[in-house]
Amino acid sequence: MTDTPPAFILVRPQMGENIGAAARSMLNFGLDHMRVVAPRDGWPNERAVALASGAGRVLDAAMLAQDTGAAVGDCSFVFATTARDRDLTKPVYSPEAAMAEARARGLRGERVAILFGPERTGLENDDIALANAIVSVPTNPAFASLNLAQCVLLIAYEWRRACAAQVPVSTAMAGTEWATQAEVSALSEHFERTLDTAGFFWPEGKAPAMKRHLRNLWSRLPLTRADVQTFHGMMRQMVRWKERG
Amino acid sequence: MTDTPPAFILVRPQMGENIGAAARSMLNFGLDHMRVVAPRDGWPNERAVALASGAGRVLDAAMLAQDTGAAVGDCSFVFATTARDRDLTKPVYSPEAAMAEARARGLRGERVAILFGPERTGLENDDIALANAIVSVPTNPAFASLNLAQCVLLIAYEWRRACAAQVPVSTAMAGTEWATQAEVSALSEHFERTLDTAGFFWPEGKAPAMKRHLRNLWSRLPLTRADVQTFHGMMRQMVRWKERG
Repeated sequence: MTDTPPAFILVRPQMGENIGAAARSMLNFGLDHMRVVAPRDGWPNERAVALASGAGRVLDAAMLAQDTGAAVGDCSFVFATTARDRDLTKPVYSPEAAMAEARARGLRGERVAILFGPERTGLENDDIALANAIVSVPTNPAFASLNLAQCVLLIAYEWRRACAAQVPVSTAMAGTEWATQAEVSALSEHFERTLDTAGFFWPEGKAPAMKRHLRNLWSRLPLTRADVQTFHGMMRQMVRWKERG
Repeated sequence: MTDTPPAFILVRPQMGENIGAAARSMLNFGLDHMRVVAPRDGWPNERAVALASGAGRVLDAAMLAQDTGAAVGDCSFVFATTARDRDLTKPVYSPEAAMAEARARGLRGERVAILFGPERTGLENDDIALANAIVSVPTNPAFASLNLAQCVLLIAYEWRRACAAQVPVSTAMAGTEWATQAEVSALSEHFERTLDTAGFFWPEGKAPAMKRHLRNLWSRLPLTRADVQTFHGMMRQMVRWKERG
């Protein structure tokens, strides 16, 4: 069984601009299977192609369908995106849960579809009746409206997150690596020794607490080897400066 | 302590359309604290207002700043959004992890900032050097470009998701609190000035890169107010020592 990506189905889209932007948003997150149901301005759409800049191949490969039923004919599970509450009994998924489901089914070779409605009105109840479940983006109830391309963007983003489920948070290390504890200790000692010579730990009675505070500080900071060398270098330079008189 | 929402900071934005769309995207997910750094076409911006339809109050309340440093002065933690790999050592967060962090800090009354760069070029390294961490949206490497409003939309979406999650609020601050960016900047400048006098930035051709590296280092370290005072104190003592001869 092959890994089958979901089909994003634009139902009766109106503005070519939005179709193009939807293609870009899909490709931003690695999706390229678009279907288009009865686009208002016909097909192909020049404005869509112009706005898709770089994602034109998503439009070139898009399947054109006469109605929503035909567009989802080969799909085993269909999600309908909608913001408003509908008078229909359907499971409602968050975008994250929906794309986790889509990903799991896709890995089993199933074709999943996500329906996106026309800009002004959204999906009609007849479209939604063809869906197995609803996906709803949790927007601010006082300012809920997302446009078509934004909705596509968020769902595509969640699809990619579902694909990458175990993404570790990495650190861009710019050619260096974390310092070892031994290196941090050596740095701490270098500073302690030099600061002692310079009279920093004063009054004497407070010196042990001050030293402990400083050792604690160094060990708490997330220092790279490059950072450690930088701090060593600063301190060496201050000493040279002093010695030059 | 009051629940403090993050500030979304648009750095040198170019198109009014994108500023308006960003305002809408923020409000879609319940965010209304915008700051704008040196917008190309001045401020207020008519195109932005026209495109913000319904989210105009986000623009009305937006704080205008001359430079990025001024815009983040009162923030205790700063994220920089960037797609490209940068030659800087910073922790890299996913949008989800970043907004979980922002949410946890916000609940402790801390102001977190997220920097968004200009449309064409993204943030400059000097902006990124002011940030504690990077947020990177995991796009398709073969088609990575997100526009400004899309990036704002995804981060705002993740913020709302973080609000819906039960974020544990941890505290182990030992009688101090995180330094603000302004305090860290002052520390960075103190070191830079003194090290300059001491001849640290040598050879001259390398001085700008060395200074940037150092500013980046300071902004990356999780420093408390006590830590900042300790570092100031060290440097002052080294100067006194030198001056005693």
